[in-house]
Amino acid sequence: MANSEYGYVRNFEQGDALPPSNWIVVRIDGRGFSKLCKKYNFEKPNDRRALDLMNAVATEVVRSFVDIVLAYGQSDEYSFVFHESTGLFERRAAKLATSVATAFTAEYCMQWSTFLPDQPLARPYPTFDGRCVCYPKHSILRDYLCWRQADCHINNLYNTTFWNMVLKGGMSTTEAEQALKGTVSSDKNEILFSRFGINYNSEPEAYKKGTVVYRLYVKDSCVNGSLKPENTGDKVPDTASKTQLEKERKRKQKAQIVIDHPDIIGDAFWTAHPYILASKRGQDHGE
Amino acid sequence: MANSEYGYVRNFEQGDALPPSNWIVVRIDGRGFSKLCKKYNFEKPNDRRALDLMNAVATEVVRSFVDIVLAYGQSDEYSFVFHESTGLFERRAAKLATSVATAFTAEYCMQWSTFLPDQPLARPYPTFDGRCVCYPKHSILRDYLCWRQADCHINNLYNTTFWNMVLKGGMSTTEAEQALKGTVSSDKNEILFSRFGINYNSEPEAYKKGTVVYRLYVKDSCVNGSLKPENTGDKVPDTASKTQLEKERKRKQKAQIVIDHPDIIGDAFWTAHPYILASKRGQDHGE
Amino acid sequence: MANSEYGYVRNFEQGDALPPSNWIVVRIDGRGFSKLCKKYNFEKPNDRRALDLMNAVATEVVRSFVDIVLAYGQSDEYSFVFHESTGLFERRAAKLATSVATAFTAEYCMQWSTFLPDQPLARPYPTFDGRCVCYPKHSILRDYLCWRQADCHINNLYNTTFWNMVLKGGMSTTEAEQALKGTVSSDKNEILFSRFGINYNSEPEAYKKGTVVYRLYVKDSCVNGSLKPENTGDKVPDTASKTQLEKERKRKQKAQIVIDHPDIIGDAFWTAHPYILASKRGQDHGE
Amino acid sequence: MANSEYGYVRNFEQGDALPPSNWIVVRIDGRGFSKLCKKYNFEKPNDRRALDLMNAVATEVVRSFVDIVLAYGQSDEYSFVFHESTGLFERRAAKLATSVATAFTAEYCMQWSTFLPDQPLARPYPTFDGRCVCYPKHSILRDYLCWRQADCHINNLYNTTFWNMVLKGGMSTTEAEQALKGTVSSDKNEILFSRFGINYNSEPEAYKKGTVVYRLYVKDSCVNGSLKPENTGDKVPDTASKTQLEKERKRKQKAQIVIDHPDIIGDAFWTAHPYILASKRGQDHGE
Repeated sequence: MANSEYGYVRNFEQGDALPPSNWIVVRIDGRGFSKLCKKYNFEKPNDRRALDLMNAVATEVVRSFVDIVLAYGQSDEYSFVFHESTGLFERRAAKLATSVATAFTAEYCMQWSTFLPDQPLARPYPTFDGRCVCYPKHSILRDYLCWRQADCHINNLYNTTFWNMVLKGGMSTTEAEQALKGTVSSDKNEILFSRFGINYNSEPEAYKKGTVVYRLYVKDSCVNGSLKPENTGDKVPDTASKTQLEKERKRKQKAQIVIDHPDIIGDAFWTAHPYILASKRGQDHGE
Repeated sequence: MANSEYGYVRNFEQGDALPPSNWIVVRIDGRGFSKLCKKYNFEKPNDRRALDLMNAVATEVVRSFVDIVLAYGQSDEYSFVFHESTGLFERRAAKLATSVATAFTAEYCMQWSTFLPDQPLARPYPTFDGRCVCYPKHSILRDYLCWRQADCHINNLYNTTFWNMVLKGGMSTTEAEQALKGTVSSDKNEILFSRFGINYNSEPEAYKKGTVVYRLYVKDSCVNGSLKPENTGDKVPDTASKTQLEKERKRKQKAQIVIDHPDIIGDAFWTAHPYILASKRGQDHGE
Repeated sequence: MANSEYGYVRNFEQGDALPPSNWIVVRIDGRGFSKLCKKYNFEKPNDRRALDLMNAVATEVVRSFVDIVLAYGQSDEYSFVFHESTGLFERRAAKLATSVATAFTAEYCMQWSTFLPDQPLARPYPTFDGRCVCYPKHSILRDYLCWRQADCHINNLYNTTFWNMVLKGGMSTTEAEQALKGTVSSDKNEILFSRFGINYNSEPEAYKKGTVVYRLYVKDSCVNGSLKPENTGDKVPDTASKTQLEKERKRKQKAQIVIDHPDIIGDAFWTAHPYILASKRGQDHGE
Repeated sequence: MANSEYGYVRNFEQGDALPPSNWIVVRIDGRGFSKLCKKYNFEKPNDRRALDLMNAVATEVVRSFVDIVLAYGQSDEYSFVFHESTGLFERRAAKLATSVATAFTAEYCMQWSTFLPDQPLARPYPTFDGRCVCYPKHSILRDYLCWRQADCHINNLYNTTFWNMVLKGGMSTTEAEQALKGTVSSDKNEILFSRFGINYNSEPEAYKKGTVVYRLYVKDSCVNGSLKPENTGDKVPDTASKTQLEKERKRKQKAQIVIDHPDIIGDAFWTAHPYILASKRGQDHGE
């Protein structure tokens, strides 16, 4: 058959399965989003509607991939953490990265008009690149998340100061940039407070901490109904998610997907939600 | 600074630059499109509107990536061929695959209502996975494209026969499947002709051959206006594309993007468009 | 300069650095060793001299790579475990695999005449292939070592039974193979005992368990001289090894390299030598 | 069975098959050879015995891997070129690199005493690291070989000048290094001629060009016996090599392995030996 003559070209596909027992982070980043921000007049330093859109989109992505245990977002990026035991797409990197990135993109385009109704989308449409990174231990995965949250804090403090200097202080962007060169955190806090009467600590958690999206499980053992989900922030009610295993499916059905802005650098969040990074049955490797 | 404590996690990103001097094919495939076909009642064996949508989307993707020299599509898949010399995203596989796949997804979602106006999109929204494959010689790249076009022919002949047996012949899908087991091409041609009066050769080229999208260059040396683009099929007028090099940019500006359904297994198409797989200046490796 | 014209070919080298924080096993295997066994009339089922040669060679390899924390060998294979924090050769896989494999090969060829003085080496000379495998947790690394030791046991029990049936029982190799088909461990133990008076449990540990090579550290805190190395088996006195860090260097200087045949499936060995898989200072990832 | 509990660890081995239709170069480099040169008092700038040893070793490596079409060596490095169609070890990179590197190491150690009889080998024994690089076109492979030969020339001219300044000119190594800083080729030629009466062009080809090792095929069509191998330099008579295919085997049997020092930057060598980079039957990809 004609096809068999050419079928050899399949041999040029290189295997790209990620190694087992590693946490897989798929991080997506907006492509050319500084242009996009200008084009649609996003508010500076943070555009609430744009961030809400990002978070709503991430929630749908978490909903549709049951092996995602947590997502963390800030600015135009989102990190989706797949459980180290996931077998999705046989852990093939390209499949994972493109499936998450296109799901994010589709939702972003389709939900856009809900969050920014007066800004009809025009070409080039928003897109996101994506990549997979493997973390061999959950402690290193946590450091990854710390890295992103620390980055969020640093950028937000800078941007908040910068844009106040420009928008309220009447500086040009070049002047503000020059003025901030070499400053440390306390300098910026001081500028905000003394010049603009802003206590940075009172800024919204969503801006300072970024956003965490995760499933909230109600433990089976807590049947007296008194146990209420805690730390839930702006909850998004979740219905059912399909999973291969019926038991797991039922557990997922009981799960809400939560959007919150907790500190994830300290231990409190993780202690309160031990199941997020818990080993799957029979796969505890002593961590 | 807080960030430096966690910055080590960046070292876990593995390099994924594709080797130089290889043609890079990014192939995208619809995720779960058999479900999607049913959900939106796509016509069988081919839904013209859905194929037109795919081709319109592919055209925009070709337009936005100037290093794509040709795209080939059939059914719910599209292969985008980047020139072997491309330096886009430093040839990083994840960047290439996700950028193409999300651009395709965004266009597909946004153009949907133009092509299927009575079928509003509902969740789960259409998405596409993607992967990169490297081909070290243009002769092997051509075999790759032959493989896809031969596959298109085989599938279309089967599907055309199968759906005629079901829709016009009154067979159940199981009966049609059984009846076609073990048949060869000539058998299917015969069934189509004798039972349904269909000459397979007269079926639309778009169905039998799939679709090729490429830039049509008007050579600088042909300034007398007598040279008209040939083999252009359903032309889509193209305006300008940005490129790094001014000279290249101007050449691209003169280029139309063409949607056509030529045979790409034989030599005629390639002889007529020698520039598609031509080496870039100074990079001729003797092929 | 002439060289700059061609220097671009360096870009074809793909990065092959192994991911950080993974234990790296370099396993070497004798190439074509069944032929080699016949050529030099190795004793069946185990040739003591050949195994002693393997172990002496492995000891020199451990001595010369200070980041190897343990080596395990059986038959014609040896696994060298590099600490998860090693930065040797920037963790490049090809460098690690070839450096260990060639060091093993050179020692094997050079020490051959010491262990097999009446069997002069002739072409083709013994060589070893090698590969790197990453293990993200020490619990999985231990399972790797269990896998090799369980394999040693299974093979040795089979081979011991098989060769007794052939050499003492007068069976042909085909007859012995047939007779052993479908037997389980207890069957083989019974054959050995009832037909040949052999209690498998009394066979040498080196044959049943394979060989572990590791540095034995005398803790700094135990300076009164009363602490003696334990579980040392056939000790090979070690002198100094060079390391980058002076402190580490001194610690290595105090270390003997031990050749022993302990069970490494259970916990006892690991409990007795906690430093072998210990995290380096400041790199404890909670395992 | 015990083994099945641990067998999962095999899944951590990552595939490392090199892409098809690429020329594979395995380059080996002496590890720590500047120390080794001092230890064994190698002559400067070139030690004839050490180079002869390298070449004799390379010849045996070429002999034992029939898919090697050519080897090029200089100083303490050797590049072995596997035909783009090779299926050896299923093109697995680690297998290829370690098998070549250990074969080279074993031969080097075993042949050492033949070439340097008064310098008994002592620990640390000579070893070689190795790596695989893929070249997608033979024109790029030729550029790779040009790169190595140009490198040989540059280094040899420098070293010849440097060591004449030190050994005959009475300079210290530091003085010679300083004196040569910023000089170009013509400067070094002039220094050699005016100060030491050396015409660099008359230096041995082996030093200026490095060494090429390849099979010399006597074409079947030339049966009258009048055709003699040409460009053979220091021929090493070759007997038989085993190959899978009987026909190929016979062809190999007729092949001598040649050690020579030709220019491989120009076309003459390649025109005279067209079979070296010839495509295998049925695998001509138009290059």
